Amino acid sequence: MRLILVLFFWRMITNPVNAHESDGALYADEFLQQVAALRDKALDHSLAYQITESLTTEVGSRLAGSPGDAKAVAWGKAKFEALNFDRVTLEPVTFNRWVRGEEKAEIMAPFAQKLAITALGRTVPTPTAGLTGEIVHFETLSDLEAADPALVKGKITFISHRMERHKDGSGYGKAVGARSSTAQITAAKGGIAAIIRSIGTDDNRTPHTGAARYDEQVASVPAGAISNPDADLLVNMLKRDTPVTVKLTLTSHWGDEYTSQNVIGDMLGTEQADQFIVIGCHLDAWDLGTGAIDDASGCGITMAAAKLIKAHIGPLKKTIRVVLWANEEYGLSGATAYHDAHKHELNKHILGGESDFGAGIIYGFGTRVAEAAMPIVTAITDMLKPLNIKYTNNQSSSAPDLIPLRNAGMAVFSLKQDGTKYFDYHHTANDTLDKIVPAELAQNVAAWVVVVAMAANTEHDFGFGLSDPSN
Amino acid sequence: MRLILVLFFWRMITNPVNAHESDGALYADEFLQQVAALRDKALDHSLAYQITESLTTEVGSRLAGSPGDAKAVAWGKAKFEALNFDRVTLEPVTFNRWVRGEEKAEIMAPFAQKLAITALGRTVPTPTAGLTGEIVHFETLSDLEAADPALVKGKITFISHRMERHKDGSGYGKAVGARSSTAQITAAKGGIAAIIRSIGTDDNRTPHTGAARYDEQVASVPAGAISNPDADLLVNMLKRDTPVTVKLTLTSHWGDEYTSQNVIGDMLGTEQADQFIVIGCHLDAWDLGTGAIDDASGCGITMAAAKLIKAHIGPLKKTIRVVLWANEEYGLSGATAYHDAHKHELNKHILGGESDFGAGIIYGFGTRVAEAAMPIVTAITDMLKPLNIKYTNNQSSSAPDLIPLRNAGMAVFSLKQDGTKYFDYHHTANDTLDKIVPAELAQNVAAWVVVVAMAANTEHDFGFGLSDPSN
Repeated sequence: MRLILVLFFWRMITNPVNAHESDGALYADEFLQQVAALRDKALDHSLAYQITESLTTEVGSRLAGSPGDAKAVAWGKAKFEALNFDRVTLEPVTFNRWVRGEEKAEIMAPFAQKLAITALGRTVPTPTAGLTGEIVHFETLSDLEAADPALVKGKITFISHRMERHKDGSGYGKAVGARSSTAQITAAKGGIAAIIRSIGTDDNRTPHTGAARYDEQVASVPAGAISNPDADLLVNMLKRDTPVTVKLTLTSHWGDEYTSQNVIGDMLGTEQADQFIVIGCHLDAWDLGTGAIDDASGCGITMAAAKLIKAHIGPLKKTIRVVLWANEEYGLSGATAYHDAHKHELNKHILGGESDFGAGIIYGFGTRVAEAAMPIVTAITDMLKPLNIKYTNNQSSSAPDLIPLRNAGMAVFSLKQDGTKYFDYHHTANDTLDKIVPAELAQNVAAWVVVVAMAANTEHDFGFGLSDPSN
Repeated sequence: MRLILVLFFWRMITNPVNAHESDGALYADEFLQQVAALRDKALDHSLAYQITESLTTEVGSRLAGSPGDAKAVAWGKAKFEALNFDRVTLEPVTFNRWVRGEEKAEIMAPFAQKLAITALGRTVPTPTAGLTGEIVHFETLSDLEAADPALVKGKITFISHRMERHKDGSGYGKAVGARSSTAQITAAKGGIAAIIRSIGTDDNRTPHTGAARYDEQVASVPAGAISNPDADLLVNMLKRDTPVTVKLTLTSHWGDEYTSQNVIGDMLGTEQADQFIVIGCHLDAWDLGTGAIDDASGCGITMAAAKLIKAHIGPLKKTIRVVLWANEEYGLSGATAYHDAHKHELNKHILGGESDFGAGIIYGFGTRVAEAAMPIVTAITDMLKPLNIKYTNNQSSSAPDLIPLRNAGMAVFSLKQDGTKYFDYHHTANDTLDKIVPAELAQNVAAWVVVVAMAANTEHDFGFGLSDPSN
């Protein structure tokens, strides 16, 4: 394969190809017409919505390791089979499970008020009867990091920084450190518990869960997120310059070892069946909602894209592999297990993409591929134009579950969704089916159909030489 | 007073007055200038917001008869005193209290899922351990009313009708019957419990409580509202044509007798101190949120209006009476108690208005006054114009707490707020301070200042002859 690739790249440089050329073309005209027709058909197709509705209605809450986890695995296997995928495989994924417990918070003084709280994932429990302490307020994580431990000792820390709303979700990266780090930093400074303002852009009494950093070797404290309105209330009460005391009962805890499954559906290739275009979603979800936008919609989009390609164009040269990843949310356990199980054949993973940012309209297409593969990217970009999707750049990151494969050298692409509203619902009880606009979901499928079909129907590689991850 | 009134009306008819006339004018020019100046000043004034913040932060949840009720009464008294009202009075209001208990619902089959539910106010409890039954689904209350009892017997009824969103809140009247009547109709047909889709326009997992009809002599069943996303889920599950079984645990129940208080703050009049312009809000609130838009904002608006008038214009001819009504939500208890306590002096209540529709911009001004008082209404309407408020008509209804006085013949006015978002939050955990836009709240105060000052600073009546409620 390496020699062919070099020759191909050489041809790219010396004789740039046109996607529509009949001689030496990347794609046959007939195929491009089929892709265009399916792209347009997908805009009116409800399969992704049906799949998303099915997962959220028939399984719903499915925290990794919970009873919903096994139901989701059974659902995934049955759904791939019902969609006539050529090969359905379960691959075991073992991790220690984190179990959500009771979660309550109330201001005891100066004015008794209940707070809507949820435990941060991976955190340790309070005593069953709860713990009570005075609040010490920091506006940002940096303020807590800089604080004199004497201020924190014996207290419950509270970080009130509010996440910003941006179409590309860039407020998340700036805010999420508080979720990751507050528990450990609080413990290190002698605090007894930690509360953060939810990492979210809404004003609903639906707090946002999500993983905190955890390490058995590092001290931590019980930690929870309160909703934005509750954080406002606490801030307002703190302005009165009277000590504010809160009682927290957060009994979530680590449990025993659990074995879930990556659920894999393949639509087999004709000429290069052992070369994979790896797409998918994560099958687990935080448990407060039904995991509709995080990430049932990603499952619906990618399963539907593979199905529609097979049904309307037929099998392509390479295999389209849809992976429903296990325990993305608090372990990346499925991603790690897959990498380890496929160590001997990582170079078969040609190009990867994961849909894990909700169900908003796709507006951008990014890649991280070898420069020599750019003509293919250009052809794909042309085909995406009627969907109002613009190429961004070749420095794309990947969604979380592809990190191990990407680190091993796999080329990746990303289809960038409008995330303006994503963090209103992300990791909350409000992550439910009604947040998905069917026509926007269908536009996603149309885009995925284009990228996946065109990536799978070339004999070329996209990569950096998988044996050399430093490239 | 009767003779004076007749003469006044006669003059109205024979010699229509102009508000700005210097001879025989309704108002002195200087006063009108003061009102205009205060109207404009109020647009930038934060007093209403401060009052609203204080009630929601320092008291918060205050269901009638709950511990928050007494805290709210103490708050109201202290706040009137802090605002230097001339006279602060507590008047007892006794009612049977309804106590919220545990509230849980889960679909048991065909697919286990938790539902976000809240008990409807005034409903009876399930057994402590809950009850389980098959769902029988009706799209509307009418469908349930028309149903063969054999369909309902032994089952849990579910009404899935969704409330419409309108600026004037008119979707509420069309939808709220399901909340009022489903429990009793279900009981009459042999059903064991009732679930309704929340009477609300949002898509949050925050169900809407609110009162159901209740009568000790009429059979009822436990009843709750599930959130709109949960109702969607249940509807989708029912589409699968498999029996859907739900377990309900709703232990809310009626308790013992409780005595709350109407809290009354008067700004005394100079010439007609025993004639009252009655404004106010209800002090109780459903308990799931902090009762910010229902109805702390109404307290903020009306208390601030009276305070600003006194502070910036001075005492006026009639007394401005601000009543913080007790137990509006499930009894109209304060309204009834006030009417009964003031039976001997109902004709002192000249004009009334209550602010109880949130904190949205006011766009309309309506009245129900004697025709002869229309010149005053016209003068007020002129003064409201810079606030983009238009006169509607002279068939205005009143907010709930004024119904007994209105039925006894008191003239009323209403300042119509934009309620487009009101039913997103109404009676839910989401009714919190952040839903109030300070500038919109201030525009309310500006409008109330105009109406109340101009109503209080005329010697004229507005009414129908309080001894003759049939007029």
